Amino acid sequence: MADPRTKSLKTVDEWEHEADVVVVGYGGAGACAAIEASRAGARVLLLEATGGGGGSTALSGGHLYLGGGTRPQKAIGSDDSPEQMFRYLMAGGDGPDEHKARLYANESVSHFNWLVSLGVPFTDTIWEDRHTIQPTDACLIWSGNEKAYPFVESARPAPRGHKVAREGDAGIELWKHLSKAVEASETEILYDTAGRALVTNDSGRVVGVVARKEGKELFVKAHRGVILTSGGFIMNMKMLANHIPRLYARIDDIELHGNPKDDGSGIQMGAAAGGAAIRMSEMFLTTPWYPPSSFTFGIMVNIRGERFINEDCYHGRVSAGAFEQPEGKAYLIVDHQAFGFPESDTRLAATEESIPEMERALDMPTGNLMHTVMHYNEQASRGIDPLFRKQSAWLRPLEASPFAAIDCSVGSSPYYAFTLGGLRTAPGGQVLSEEGETIPGLFAAGANSSGITRSASTYCSGQSIGDATFFGRQAGSSAASSPPW
Amino acid sequence: MADPRTKSLKTVDEWEHEADVVVVGYGGAGACAAIEASRAGARVLLLEATGGGGGSTALSGGHLYLGGGTRPQKAIGSDDSPEQMFRYLMAGGDGPDEHKARLYANESVSHFNWLVSLGVPFTDTIWEDRHTIQPTDACLIWSGNEKAYPFVESARPAPRGHKVAREGDAGIELWKHLSKAVEASETEILYDTAGRALVTNDSGRVVGVVARKEGKELFVKAHRGVILTSGGFIMNMKMLANHIPRLYARIDDIELHGNPKDDGSGIQMGAAAGGAAIRMSEMFLTTPWYPPSSFTFGIMVNIRGERFINEDCYHGRVSAGAFEQPEGKAYLIVDHQAFGFPESDTRLAATEESIPEMERALDMPTGNLMHTVMHYNEQASRGIDPLFRKQSAWLRPLEASPFAAIDCSVGSSPYYAFTLGGLRTAPGGQVLSEEGETIPGLFAAGANSSGITRSASTYCSGQSIGDATFFGRQAGSSAASSPPW
Repeated sequence: MADPRTKSLKTVDEWEHEADVVVVGYGGAGACAAIEASRAGARVLLLEATGGGGGSTALSGGHLYLGGGTRPQKAIGSDDSPEQMFRYLMAGGDGPDEHKARLYANESVSHFNWLVSLGVPFTDTIWEDRHTIQPTDACLIWSGNEKAYPFVESARPAPRGHKVAREGDAGIELWKHLSKAVEASETEILYDTAGRALVTNDSGRVVGVVARKEGKELFVKAHRGVILTSGGFIMNMKMLANHIPRLYARIDDIELHGNPKDDGSGIQMGAAAGGAAIRMSEMFLTTPWYPPSSFTFGIMVNIRGERFINEDCYHGRVSAGAFEQPEGKAYLIVDHQAFGFPESDTRLAATEESIPEMERALDMPTGNLMHTVMHYNEQASRGIDPLFRKQSAWLRPLEASPFAAIDCSVGSSPYYAFTLGGLRTAPGGQVLSEEGETIPGLFAAGANSSGITRSASTYCSGQSIGDATFFGRQAGSSAASSPPW
Repeated sequence: MADPRTKSLKTVDEWEHEADVVVVGYGGAGACAAIEASRAGARVLLLEATGGGGGSTALSGGHLYLGGGTRPQKAIGSDDSPEQMFRYLMAGGDGPDEHKARLYANESVSHFNWLVSLGVPFTDTIWEDRHTIQPTDACLIWSGNEKAYPFVESARPAPRGHKVAREGDAGIELWKHLSKAVEASETEILYDTAGRALVTNDSGRVVGVVARKEGKELFVKAHRGVILTSGGFIMNMKMLANHIPRLYARIDDIELHGNPKDDGSGIQMGAAAGGAAIRMSEMFLTTPWYPPSSFTFGIMVNIRGERFINEDCYHGRVSAGAFEQPEGKAYLIVDHQAFGFPESDTRLAATEESIPEMERALDMPTGNLMHTVMHYNEQASRGIDPLFRKQSAWLRPLEASPFAAIDCSVGSSPYYAFTLGGLRTAPGGQVLSEEGETIPGLFAAGANSSGITRSASTYCSGQSIGDATFFGRQAGSSAASSPPW
């Protein structure tokens, strides 16, 4: 029998805690919500299921997808604008909510400056090579599909991945400054306290939270609003089976990326209160098949020996394509000239003197890979790729033997995944019903909401933390200014 | 501001109606639920949003996907068994809930006999050609992927599409008998009465329904259970945008298949009561590219001139593949020998004397289609199809000019769609939470639930009505035997 995710106000005898704004989950989104709500004069109470804050933000690489002319962008001479950034966000398929994308692009410089005002450090440098994460403290990186087709036809490319200044993974550095700002506010934090249900009044307005602390139920009154920021559902096997069966079917071959409390409880609570849980089948998925950048000169093929994507796309977009191929099998074919030392755990499937030998080594049908390579080489020598439109900078015939096949198959190459589906929200963080109407008193941000990126094929590094921190702030401001019930 | 989809029992002053079992939606699932609940001794009240019953069942072709050795199967000498049927249902990718599939296969003969006992007529004949619907009153048809790879490797093929005896579309004939059985029961029916919200008590048990009739709210008490059977959401544009963006993006090119009240209200109510709404991104999708059967000798290619599927699959599986190709473009290439008069509205894109001319006519890159055809012919002449495993009965080199291209592209060829996502249910029709726990007092069936088929690529004609009638019955029995609150 299911534990209800909403409770009627009429069943509440006593409130153990109260605040103007109650935030459920103390990661990047929750911290930013608390900071802004507090600055707007609200008394804020944060409920955190674990013994400490940080969530997936602290575990992350520390990229934020920002642009429109930030300080580091200007310093390196990159010409970006809110309009170009907006166009980019809307390109390439299932785009985000247009109003959210517009606000995010328009306010991106301001959000960068806000982070700086909290003390978050960024250098004025760029890492030019293709990489999943800058090994140095360089700020900018091309962290998406900006220079690749079809995106490049919609918007002028600009590097928008902004990494917090720290070598390698920098989420912990970002968290240091966010948590410091929360501590400097009047925000009260209850640790080891998990949100379990929302309390609603007769008209469906959210008026509080039922939490669980040390096995006991705790009723927490929210005068103005509840903000759900308790993460996605990558650690909830039942929800993965319900919503992402293609992931669940390969669960042993995929590293689930997140923290143990990414259990979907916030999404479940929001849905029970009438919020629409949307894009629940979508996930971020990648196998880091580059660096080296030179691998981009190669071609990615399936077991039929056919290409399926332009290889100059972001690793996640290419990986999402590879994942969908028959049996999840994909090989990057490079020649001697394109080969380089793989920095990640990619596996060499074969090295052969000729393409026909490669076909046999990879157990491909005779002649298909040969046709693919001949066709590719013929077009590449003319600087074009009519089939997939890889950009000319990465086109060069594959003819310097020996040839190598890097195994990018699911089960052979390490794949990482986290969920992208969540509650539908307005630009101000208000949770919306299936019909697009607000649920009074309820807000969401971070991986509890469906954000700026909605699928693996359009995701860019930095969009999760960018979205979580930015829309966390919006939700905090909105909740603080909501009329009390 | 969203109209709440659940109401606390404490807000109910008076019940205008009451029954043991309240069924929301009078289509195939609702009718069968009412019949069984009534036979089990329950007082049943049916709420129907429109002025008459029938729902999508009455509008349908009247196929039921049944097997395991039904009377018509035996009459034509087809060797089927519950085990083979179960194996088939679980094959080909994202299969249904295993327990539901097992029950459905085991009880399929009994369900056929139950329908016969209501007077539903079936002939003991088969329509052997490939078709979307038998033009005659023939009962059996190969309505799925039974003889195609990979299904054929999991289960012994048997024709399982059972059409009610009537020429062409036969849903109306099925409905005649289902509604007669409902009328013969003690079931009370309120027409023009739409379910709007569920009433729950303090522990989350569903105890009634808030309905709307002639603009007025009506409180309906359910002593034992509420059964949601009010259809899918193909007519709700906001839900399509929320959950099936790839459909929504091509909405002008697709015929939405259903009735105007397929508005997702039942799914919304169930989700608000704590039910998991799963597989919400999935839809049935087809363009009827055959008959004639001889088209199966052709090859289906995308604009790169590549095949993407074995063409002996069910039209829906092939169409779902076509829909996912670049720009939704696909062409069936046939030679003179495979050509036949298309019975549906498919469009001829080109007729050419040679494949290179066909490439130019279809604006394909030079050489790819030529390679595809040469490779296909070479293998087909040996009776094999290593790339996609079309069965040998449909393999014949394409060499008799002239060649024709049938345009199966989205926007050129008529595509039909309806939704497959819905509430997660147990074999007995109980609605389940994300964690798999029951929501006491709540049941669902038909397109309010996620059924036997979960995606376009495994759908077979007759699975919607088969699932709706069968699991409608289970929900009716379960609700009738639930303890009153």
